[in-house]
Amino acid sequence: MTRLVIIGGSDAGISAAIRARELAPEKDVVVLAADRFPNYSICGLPFYLSGEVSDWKTLAHRKTRELERLGIGLRLDHKATRIDPATKSVTATTAGGRLRTFRYDRLIVATGAVPARPSIQGLSLPGVFFLRSMVDGFVLHHDLTTREPQSAVIMGSGYIGMEMADALTRRGLSVTVVARSSVLKTLDSSLGRLVRDELTRNKVKVVEGSPVTAIEKGRRGRLSVRMFAGDPIRADLILVATGSQPESALAARAGVTTGIQGAIRVSRTMGTNLPDAYAAGDCVETWHRLLGKNVYLPLGTTAHKQGRVAGENAAGGEAKFSGSLGTQVVKVFDLVAARTGLLDWEASEAGFSPRTAELESWDHKVYYPGATPLRVRLTADRTTRVLLGAQILGHYSAEVSKRADVIATAISSQMTVDDLVKLDLSYTPPTGAPWDPIQTCAQEWLDSAD
Amino acid sequence: MTRLVIIGGSDAGISAAIRARELAPEKDVVVLAADRFPNYSICGLPFYLSGEVSDWKTLAHRKTRELERLGIGLRLDHKATRIDPATKSVTATTAGGRLRTFRYDRLIVATGAVPARPSIQGLSLPGVFFLRSMVDGFVLHHDLTTREPQSAVIMGSGYIGMEMADALTRRGLSVTVVARSSVLKTLDSSLGRLVRDELTRNKVKVVEGSPVTAIEKGRRGRLSVRMFAGDPIRADLILVATGSQPESALAARAGVTTGIQGAIRVSRTMGTNLPDAYAAGDCVETWHRLLGKNVYLPLGTTAHKQGRVAGENAAGGEAKFSGSLGTQVVKVFDLVAARTGLLDWEASEAGFSPRTAELESWDHKVYYPGATPLRVRLTADRTTRVLLGAQILGHYSAEVSKRADVIATAISSQMTVDDLVKLDLSYTPPTGAPWDPIQTCAQEWLDSAD
Repeated sequence: MTRLVIIGGSDAGISAAIRARELAPEKDVVVLAADRFPNYSICGLPFYLSGEVSDWKTLAHRKTRELERLGIGLRLDHKATRIDPATKSVTATTAGGRLRTFRYDRLIVATGAVPARPSIQGLSLPGVFFLRSMVDGFVLHHDLTTREPQSAVIMGSGYIGMEMADALTRRGLSVTVVARSSVLKTLDSSLGRLVRDELTRNKVKVVEGSPVTAIEKGRRGRLSVRMFAGDPIRADLILVATGSQPESALAARAGVTTGIQGAIRVSRTMGTNLPDAYAAGDCVETWHRLLGKNVYLPLGTTAHKQGRVAGENAAGGEAKFSGSLGTQVVKVFDLVAARTGLLDWEASEAGFSPRTAELESWDHKVYYPGATPLRVRLTADRTTRVLLGAQILGHYSAEVSKRADVIATAISSQMTVDDLVKLDLSYTPPTGAPWDPIQTCAQEWLDSAD
Repeated sequence: MTRLVIIGGSDAGISAAIRARELAPEKDVVVLAADRFPNYSICGLPFYLSGEVSDWKTLAHRKTRELERLGIGLRLDHKATRIDPATKSVTATTAGGRLRTFRYDRLIVATGAVPARPSIQGLSLPGVFFLRSMVDGFVLHHDLTTREPQSAVIMGSGYIGMEMADALTRRGLSVTVVARSSVLKTLDSSLGRLVRDELTRNKVKVVEGSPVTAIEKGRRGRLSVRMFAGDPIRADLILVATGSQPESALAARAGVTTGIQGAIRVSRTMGTNLPDAYAAGDCVETWHRLLGKNVYLPLGTTAHKQGRVAGENAAGGEAKFSGSLGTQVVKVFDLVAARTGLLDWEASEAGFSPRTAELESWDHKVYYPGATPLRVRLTADRTTRVLLGAQILGHYSAEVSKRADVIATAISSQMTVDDLVKLDLSYTPPTGAPWDPIQTCAQEWLDSAD
C-alpha cells in the first residue's frame, strides 16, 4: 500500500486528504496536524471572540470522527520538524516530546501561514496577542474572559483588523485601530473611507497614517502604543494584525524552492521542485488568473481549491489549479465590502490600461422597504474593454458578496464591459433593479469612454 | 428633423426613447402612452397593494419631468389605434376622444401585454380583477380600501399569483390560491412544494390540480368559484392571474408578422417585417440564448434590454439583442425563488441530455447567526457538461437572486460544471462558505456522473 503524508490539518491539508481518499480509496492517507484542531474554520475566530458564536466547537468544518470515517489517518499534536527527501520521510514531534518518522510515497506540504511580526519592540509583552490559529483564539478568549480588558488597540487595518475591531466592540471594549496608512487598503480610498466611517459610527477610534514604533509597559498593568506621530495610546490589550507570512521554513530546509515573500514555489499542478512533493494553501505562491503569474495571496477559498488539486494529483490525477482572482469579502459591523480582480493601480502596474467607473445606487428598488445604498467600482481595460476588477460595498442585506461573484465569473470568462451590460440577470423589486447596479455601473463605464 | 415614434410608455418604450435621445440628440422622439403613467415599475404593484409601498408615485422609475428634460416628447393618454406603413404614420385617440396622427421616419412598437383571459364565465362580474397596468392597480386598490373585502381567491400560481397571495394576506384578507396543476410551475416540483409550504405556513389555502370552471354570483354580494372538482369556494374578491398575452393586434392589423402566442416576430436587431419599424418588450418574441430560437417570455429585464436595442437601432445604430436565459426571481413571504436557463425537462425537449443535481445546504456558515437553509438545483448536459440551468430557493436574507445571477453569467459564457467548481468566488462566514453552495451542488453533479 502506498502512503500519502500531508503536513497540516487546516483547509488545504484536509481538502487534499479528502480528495485523495475519494479518488484512491486504497491509499494510506496520513495527516500530521500540529495541534488538536484539524479542519477548523479559523475564519470564524473573530465571531467566536465577539460572542456571536457561543460554542467554539461549531467552528469545525467537520468533526474528527467524520474525517476518520473517510479513512483519513489523523495524527494530532504531531508537529513536523523535518522532511527528508532522500529517504522520503517526515519526522514529527508528538505532544509528549517523542519523535516519530513517517515514510511517504507522496507528500503534501500544507503548513499554512503565521502572523507577520512587525519589527518593533514589545511584541512579547503580556497583553499583546496575535490571531491565526485556534490556539491563538483560545488564548485571546481566555484573556478576554478572565482578565476582562476594557480597552484594545488593533495594529493593522486589513480583514482581521476590521473583523476584530467589530468583535471587540461587540464585547464592550473600547477599541482603537492604528492603520499604517489608511483603512482597508485592499479597496480604493473612496470605499476605504466608507469602511472607516462605519468604524467611527460604531465608536471605534481610527488612527491613520502613523505606524506603531513600539509597545511599552504602562502603569497599572496597562500597555502603551507609541506611534511615529501623536501621543501614545494606552490600552489593556493589543492585537497585532499586520498580515501573515508563509510557514515555509520546514520545506525550505528540505530543499523546497521558495519565492515571493518566502512562499513555496509551486506549479499549477501544485507540484514543488522535489519529486513526489506537492504543496498547497497559505504556505505557497498562488497563480493569479489575470496577472498570469504567481503572487502571494493567502485566502481560505484558495487553500481549499489548491488542496483539492494537490490531493487529486497526489492520488495519480492530473488536476490543474485554475488560479485566483483575489476575490474576497469582509463584514465590518453592518457593512460588507467585497472585491475581485485588480484595483486600477494594480492593473496599471501589470501593463493594462485600466479605467474605473464608480456608481452609488441602491441594492434594490428604493420604493420597496429596506433599500440601502450600494457602491460599485468597476475597472476594465480602455482598449479591449475586458473586465479587470470590481469593488462593491453595501449593507449586510445588500447581496454584496454574490454581486462581486457575478463579476468574478464574468472576469473568469474574459467578458467585456459590454458583455456585462447584456447579461440576463434576475430582478424583482425586493432584490434588485431591472438593470442590476453592477450593470448600471458598466453602462456608466461605457458612457464615460474616451 | 427626423422623427421616431414609440407606441408604449412602459419599460421597453421608455428605454428605447432614452437610448435614441442619447445617441441621436437631433432626433425628434415622441412616445405615445396609452395612460398617464409612463415609465412606472408595474412589477412594484403587488407591494403597493400589500401596503408595503405607501405612495404609488414612488413606483415611477423616473418622473415625467425627468423624461421631458431628456428631450422625450411624451403624449399621455394617447391610445394608438392605427399604424399606416404606407404613409408612415400612427393615429392615436386622446383622452378627449380626438384623433391625432403622427408621421414617423422610424417606429417602435412597445405595446406590452395584457392579462390572459381564461375561457370561463364570470370574468366581468364586479369583484373580479386583473392586474397588469397601473390603472388595474388603482382599481384594485380602490376596491380593497373602500369595499374592504375579507377574502380572496387568486386564480393562477405564477409570479403575480404568488406575490398577490403574499400581498393580500399582509392586508389581512383570507386568501385561497387555485392552481391549475401545481404551485409555481416555473420551478421543479421539489422546490415548488417548498413555495406551497411557505404559502400554507402563512395561512394561504392552496388548491392544486383543479382548474376553475366558472365564477358565479353568490349570496350577499359574494362570489363563488367553481372548480373541476371539489366544493365551490366563496370569496369577496377574485384576482385572475393566469398569465399574459402579447398586445400585438394594432401591429398585426398594419401587416406586422406575428408568431408564437401571437407575439410580434422580431429579428435580433428588434426589427419587424415592416420597413423602419421595430418592436420590443412584452409584445414581441424573445431570442433565447440556450435554445437558439425565439420564444414568448415576457419579463421586465428583457423589455429594458430589447427597448435599448430598438432605440439604438432606430437612431442609426447596429445593436443586437443578446437574448434571454429566462432568469427570474420572486419573493413569496420570507422565501425567494430564482431560476435561470432551462429546467431538466425543457432541456430534454430542446435536444440536450440533461442531468440535474439537488443540494440542501446553508446560505452561510451555520455557526454564524442567521444561517438559513438553501436549496440549489443545477442542470447540465451529461455529454458536454455545459451548464443548462439552475433553480435556487432560500430565505430573503440568503442572497438567492445573485447566486442565480452567478450561474446565469456562467451559462452565458458556456461554462461547464467543472468551470463552476473552479470559480474564485468570495467567502466570509456571514455570507457563504469556502465552496459556495452552488459550487458544492456542482461537485455533487460531478460526483454523481454516470
